[in-house]
Amino acid sequence: MARMADGRTWLERDAAVVWHGFTQMAAYPDNAPVVVDRAEGHYLYDTEGTRYLDAISSLWVTTLGHCVPELDDALRDQLARGAHTTLLGNGNRTTVELAEALARVVPVDDAHVLFAGDGASAVEQALKIAFQYWVNRGVTGRTRFLGFGDAYHGDTIGALSVGDGGFGTDLFDPLRFPVVRAPGFTDPQCFDRAVALVAAHAAELAAVIVEPVVQGAAGMHLADPADLHRLARACAEHDVLLICDEVATGFGRTGTLFASEQCGIRPDLLCLGKGLTAGYLAMSATVASGRVYDAFLGEDLGPHTLYHGHSYSGNALAAAVALRHLELIDAWDVLANVRARSEELRGLLADRIEPLPQVREVRLHGLMGGVELAPPGPGLRWGRRVCAAAVRRGVLLRPLGDVVVLMPPLTVTSGEIHEIVRVLTEALTEGAPEALTEGAPEAAGATS
Amino acid sequence: MARMADGRTWLERDAAVVWHGFTQMAAYPDNAPVVVDRAEGHYLYDTEGTRYLDAISSLWVTTLGHCVPELDDALRDQLARGAHTTLLGNGNRTTVELAEALARVVPVDDAHVLFAGDGASAVEQALKIAFQYWVNRGVTGRTRFLGFGDAYHGDTIGALSVGDGGFGTDLFDPLRFPVVRAPGFTDPQCFDRAVALVAAHAAELAAVIVEPVVQGAAGMHLADPADLHRLARACAEHDVLLICDEVATGFGRTGTLFASEQCGIRPDLLCLGKGLTAGYLAMSATVASGRVYDAFLGEDLGPHTLYHGHSYSGNALAAAVALRHLELIDAWDVLANVRARSEELRGLLADRIEPLPQVREVRLHGLMGGVELAPPGPGLRWGRRVCAAAVRRGVLLRPLGDVVVLMPPLTVTSGEIHEIVRVLTEALTEGAPEALTEGAPEAAGATS
Repeated sequence: MARMADGRTWLERDAAVVWHGFTQMAAYPDNAPVVVDRAEGHYLYDTEGTRYLDAISSLWVTTLGHCVPELDDALRDQLARGAHTTLLGNGNRTTVELAEALARVVPVDDAHVLFAGDGASAVEQALKIAFQYWVNRGVTGRTRFLGFGDAYHGDTIGALSVGDGGFGTDLFDPLRFPVVRAPGFTDPQCFDRAVALVAAHAAELAAVIVEPVVQGAAGMHLADPADLHRLARACAEHDVLLICDEVATGFGRTGTLFASEQCGIRPDLLCLGKGLTAGYLAMSATVASGRVYDAFLGEDLGPHTLYHGHSYSGNALAAAVALRHLELIDAWDVLANVRARSEELRGLLADRIEPLPQVREVRLHGLMGGVELAPPGPGLRWGRRVCAAAVRRGVLLRPLGDVVVLMPPLTVTSGEIHEIVRVLTEALTEGAPEALTEGAPEAAGATS
Repeated sequence: MARMADGRTWLERDAAVVWHGFTQMAAYPDNAPVVVDRAEGHYLYDTEGTRYLDAISSLWVTTLGHCVPELDDALRDQLARGAHTTLLGNGNRTTVELAEALARVVPVDDAHVLFAGDGASAVEQALKIAFQYWVNRGVTGRTRFLGFGDAYHGDTIGALSVGDGGFGTDLFDPLRFPVVRAPGFTDPQCFDRAVALVAAHAAELAAVIVEPVVQGAAGMHLADPADLHRLARACAEHDVLLICDEVATGFGRTGTLFASEQCGIRPDLLCLGKGLTAGYLAMSATVASGRVYDAFLGEDLGPHTLYHGHSYSGNALAAAVALRHLELIDAWDVLANVRARSEELRGLLADRIEPLPQVREVRLHGLMGGVELAPPGPGLRWGRRVCAAAVRRGVLLRPLGDVVVLMPPLTVTSGEIHEIVRVLTEALTEGAPEALTEGAPEAAGATS
């Protein structure tokens, strides 16, 4: 690896000062990290000039690729008009235009958009809005939330509270507020149970929060859209608000602009992030229905107001990119590509990956995919090794435990899909413990 | 106001779809909002072409003004190399360079930088790191935090928990975790009490969190730097971590790069945001000392890891701007301007504002200022009216209750300081209830 003037590599400099999220820093340099120098289209180039296909969309955010000329133009145009002005008590034209464009396409009735920066912040906003909604209406006791097992909604304390343990976050339990918990999507009865819990706890529930169709960070666990519809109906019947967290699934990732559409549901609150800015800039949003929003109207400086707001809410640069992004999704018929490439990927995974003894299960919805590896033995996780082998072959992958995530840009080509599967096949062979490559996995029925 | 093709004004379009933070939307259109079309230097231009001096730095974030050619160049250069790549398990050259530049200037020993988007997220990270630090070290019972009265640390549930009530956020108490609470900076004994609480609760305290020198959102309440030093010494003596929240005070706002420097303290954890990107883009950061960071080193995928990370952590576009910003603060000797303009503003406020019967107290530190209005009567807040009168005169102000905030860009000129004070003087007369302009305030001794 090339050394700098001071004798250190970029990786050494990186590891010395940057604390990477969800990363054991003592092991960071040994886990085949890519230190990116530049990015273009669907590819990343590291500080050595080596090229990698970005098969995780820079952690699920990039939709149309890197350095998209149309998005770059939109950003440069806005830059000439100012990067940011505050949305606290004031407005910005570009943000208005984005909010209007979002309101036209989100599956929320009479949509109102409250912007933030991190996806977790959008979830926090939804939780606080749902909580205050009942207070403003004078209904007491609606102080709890129902969340699903294995759910991931972000890492701030509120978002972490409605999320389930996992990722070693149980240690933060003393800081979390308690939640009514339905089982995770891996339990076939989870929606029966959730619907029953809504009925049983209606009088104390402010809202239900769910990742529609795909529990992403849990390892790409899928739900039947009809079950989501059933859940939404139960919420409506028992007058409990429904929060759909589409931070990961939104903006085309599942083959429709929002996964909620596939379920035929219109949530009271919708959380957006990641793909909102096409993977360019930190921006998230909480979309509230007119019914929810109206409960916050009242006397100026009075108690009905939502006293919440982030400094960079509605940032104009991010808004300009997000606005152009929505136009391009439409103009380029990106959703059609997601569906076509998803079918192609499904076929290739069925043919070449699913039959391997190293693989326990393949899950795919749109371009959100997970290849769950067969457990090689207690405690030993080898998602890391498979992904490192893929990185050495020029395809950037990152696992969730023993699930290898496949999350290419929405504009991925057929050739790139083939390349990802080819490299994954090789990586599964190289990265696998010998016990698995020598025969069928004995532990295929065990839990991961 | 100019109407669009569809007969609506920009303000009407705004109010129809954008939910503004900390804003009663029913009253929004009546509170003199500025809907910005473009910004340049220290000025904003609304959709009618009217110009406003941005005397709140777009809510405390803009440092060098809008459309700064050097910052715009840095952003455009990075745009050509890619807007964003993930920091989860991977790196980015520009982010490494920013982290190195920050590590050189922050008052933290052996600094390691964990990036996020919202300021609140930086606080959440600090809280979780402090909490897990003790778990990783095998010390039990260190599960609580000490915060100050009137403190503001952001709006997500963890940040809201360590913050004090106020802003009508008491309603969220059922979601907050409990905190050991010292009095606010308005209480002259607050640091005596805080030091005593640290001693009394040391065995259960993970950390103390404080806004060094200025409690900003509380209304610009000031503390003696020596008291902060005393607090830091108590933390060190009792082995309690110290978190300095410099989201508002950081990057020159108080006359030094960080307010902690004035106190001669080096916190274990430092929260940054707002001015980090010069007011351009959403980026925040939590800086951890080497001692804290080292407690998280361990086995890969093991329990010592911080399982926390935001999608846009270390965003390359924001990093490029933040990096150039640090260089410009130095090259332009921005801190000298902050100190000179602060003295000038202090003199003008003492001469022209403090003697007015409408004014209860003037508070200023660096270029963080607050003019607390005399209470005109129970329940009636008139900060709004004064700020609306200033906006009509071309100076954008926004109050915190009955405190008119003065927070000009750090590169503000002498002429602009004079203009702000001139307009504020007029606005105080126009916006004041008649009872106050007719004589001295009777209620000057009452609490606000």
